[in-house]
Amino acid sequence: MKHALEVAHRRRDDWIADLIECLRIPSISTKPDYSGKMQECAEWIVTHLREMGIENVRVEQTAGHPMITGRHIVDPKLPTVLVYGHYDVQPPEPVDLWTSPPFEPEIREGKIFARGAVDDKGQLFMVLKAIQAYLESDDKLPINLKFALEGEEETGSASLPAFLEAHSRELGADTLLVCDTTMMDPATPTLTSALRGLTYVQVDLRGAKGDLHSGAFGGSVTNVLHVLADVIAALHDDNNRVAVPGFYDGVANATGDVRAQVAALPFDMTRWRESAGGSVPLMESGYSIAEATSIRPCLDVNGVWGGYQGDGAKTVIACEAHAKLSCRLVAGQDPEGIFEKIKSYIASIVPDGIEARVTPIGYSSPFSANPDSRGMLAAATALEEVFGRSPVMYRGGGSIPAVAMFHDALGVEATLMGFGLKSDNVHAPDEHFGLDRFENGLQSVIRFFHHFGSRK
Amino acid sequence: MKHALEVAHRRRDDWIADLIECLRIPSISTKPDYSGKMQECAEWIVTHLREMGIENVRVEQTAGHPMITGRHIVDPKLPTVLVYGHYDVQPPEPVDLWTSPPFEPEIREGKIFARGAVDDKGQLFMVLKAIQAYLESDDKLPINLKFALEGEEETGSASLPAFLEAHSRELGADTLLVCDTTMMDPATPTLTSALRGLTYVQVDLRGAKGDLHSGAFGGSVTNVLHVLADVIAALHDDNNRVAVPGFYDGVANATGDVRAQVAALPFDMTRWRESAGGSVPLMESGYSIAEATSIRPCLDVNGVWGGYQGDGAKTVIACEAHAKLSCRLVAGQDPEGIFEKIKSYIASIVPDGIEARVTPIGYSSPFSANPDSRGMLAAATALEEVFGRSPVMYRGGGSIPAVAMFHDALGVEATLMGFGLKSDNVHAPDEHFGLDRFENGLQSVIRFFHHFGSRK
Repeated sequence: MKHALEVAHRRRDDWIADLIECLRIPSISTKPDYSGKMQECAEWIVTHLREMGIENVRVEQTAGHPMITGRHIVDPKLPTVLVYGHYDVQPPEPVDLWTSPPFEPEIREGKIFARGAVDDKGQLFMVLKAIQAYLESDDKLPINLKFALEGEEETGSASLPAFLEAHSRELGADTLLVCDTTMMDPATPTLTSALRGLTYVQVDLRGAKGDLHSGAFGGSVTNVLHVLADVIAALHDDNNRVAVPGFYDGVANATGDVRAQVAALPFDMTRWRESAGGSVPLMESGYSIAEATSIRPCLDVNGVWGGYQGDGAKTVIACEAHAKLSCRLVAGQDPEGIFEKIKSYIASIVPDGIEARVTPIGYSSPFSANPDSRGMLAAATALEEVFGRSPVMYRGGGSIPAVAMFHDALGVEATLMGFGLKSDNVHAPDEHFGLDRFENGLQSVIRFFHHFGSRK
Repeated sequence: MKHALEVAHRRRDDWIADLIECLRIPSISTKPDYSGKMQECAEWIVTHLREMGIENVRVEQTAGHPMITGRHIVDPKLPTVLVYGHYDVQPPEPVDLWTSPPFEPEIREGKIFARGAVDDKGQLFMVLKAIQAYLESDDKLPINLKFALEGEEETGSASLPAFLEAHSRELGADTLLVCDTTMMDPATPTLTSALRGLTYVQVDLRGAKGDLHSGAFGGSVTNVLHVLADVIAALHDDNNRVAVPGFYDGVANATGDVRAQVAALPFDMTRWRESAGGSVPLMESGYSIAEATSIRPCLDVNGVWGGYQGDGAKTVIACEAHAKLSCRLVAGQDPEGIFEKIKSYIASIVPDGIEARVTPIGYSSPFSANPDSRGMLAAATALEEVFGRSPVMYRGGGSIPAVAMFHDALGVEATLMGFGLKSDNVHAPDEHFGLDRFENGLQSVIRFFHHFGSRK
């Protein structure tokens, strides 16, 4: 792998330029208007893979956004890595809070700023460029490769189960490599051993047939915005526990062992506060920040809107009110069951005369990795070589629906090796990725391929 | 006045066409982008008055939108009517709920649909055309006229006090005629004897410096959208009384007399429910619908927004949350004092780490008319002649800040004679005005001028 590492180091700036080209494509999966851009981005990546020398790849249509799939078989006797990643990104709003435009990547102070810089185009490129490093060097690729890159990660991977069912035989592999997670801090190599699940819900309330004048009707009608506030206020109790009946059913009480594991991970309050934009911590009563964002579930409202939102005054009683909310789930919780509990609870709060529509927008199952799998062990060796210390095992707070789906469909173990930081503004304005971490990630993946290929 | 009444009847369709021309101008006072349209609308009305034969009128600039002012002295010995009205309109949003576009007036089933059709361009035109009816007929105008038409009624008449102070000598009059109120129902002529006051407030909450990823931070930070919901939920108690401390200070307990007056007014539950778009009634505990919208104050949230509001899912914890809210006030309540109470109360609810900015957007004092003034008596006679029954005296639920301002600045009594209906969708999509009511209003104003001029 020595030559591949050298090539990667020498070619880094060219490859950042390739990444910038990909980041310019606004592949926003959640917005229907951007479906053309999604197709364009998928085709761009396939063309790029072919130019690298991976011929056998293609864009494959689904009921939603296209998948990129294919294979590169070096030697049937070698183990196979199935590369997962996603080329879709979150919407850039609020756009006016970005320092540079979200789809005009800019490098400032050693970081690349753009929507998707780290989640996930930047991290996916570490893997693609690790492959290119072998292909351009005198080192032979020590593994076979398969690809399943999707365009719906940010919207819940709705088309992935059907795709996996249709392609289960051709996608069989010895590990699923996922570079879409974070490190504890820039000096602490991190393997993610668990992911929280997700239930994402939209709530639409309707009162009167139309908006009403607040002079003529103020004081005499149920105000749908007040009802929305009552619903949201009722989602948590005074201990900041989720008040939806049955929400914690099936969630194991944290044992001393698990709590000790979480407590043993590095945690720096100053760094946390900075990443959290100066937030005051507020957790489920009795749990630490680290516990509340890993081994405990939670519920957050992600957006609300209704009535007049323009300049100045409009004296109106609105007829509609809306909210988006989502739960992060842990082992023992079923995403669809949680949705049903939320729906029933909201129905029990909303008064007569207000119509409530509660709709699921996305699900993701909670996931736990096998820390002794061939992939996790190879990744641990690779990370130790690059960072000079063995990686920590981290239960992540986020969700990657695909990981549980691959496990369910193919029985494949996952290797979650990520290089993001909580302070990268993922899903927020000024998302960025440090070029140093891009290079460390690239070197780590090159080494991972080597160790995964040679390990018995 | 016989000839004037005949001219008005004959010319009705021409005058509706004039009104339609005025309704085409989107004079939305609350939106800064529309200041050019405000100027255009004021100039259009002045040109129109001059074409009618009222030469001595002009557009006069203020710190906000322009005023239209001037006079038409027929004979110094005649009594003088100061005509008030407003050429500004509410924003048309939500535009997609209009059957025809808000600024492309359309007549359907004997009603004219447009923003401003009744509030207030349509009602102002009844007065302007009553004047034109005299000018085009053999009947001499039986009164002198002065004009003070404003462009800031929908935003709280902020520039009016300074204008009135500067022009108090030239605006002296024997009554202020205001056609900007409603009738109890199409068959019940109505004089408005009181108006509620208004305090309009914007609430801006800020949490973290920027939006946060709900996977990384969900369960560990104060969510500003939850705080907004807590604030709104805390604005009312379980009896649907406003929970802001001191809100009801100074409000008289309703006496049996006042309650009997309210109860004696016509009230049709079927018609109310239709006007209220099918709303389920919800009042301050112990009060009827009619009481809750006339002799009792109230508080309504008019709009909320924050976080992700687009299609699909965005797993974000927002850093900002916003609400607009307003109170309708009755005699004994001071609009600025109510603002201070709301501001203190919100500050007491918002937790550490959330910054709350509470800003006043507009004020209007509650108003009570003298039912025995020369203007009210002349209006009662006019309405009785047109409708065949004497008018009811109605305490209105809405607010016209200007009315108290004129009284304070000029000492002038007001005559509030209106022809709107609660079902006209004022401030809402599909605002409309019945052409039959336009004609009844026009005839009533012609007769009002006659009786006001001849009454001693």
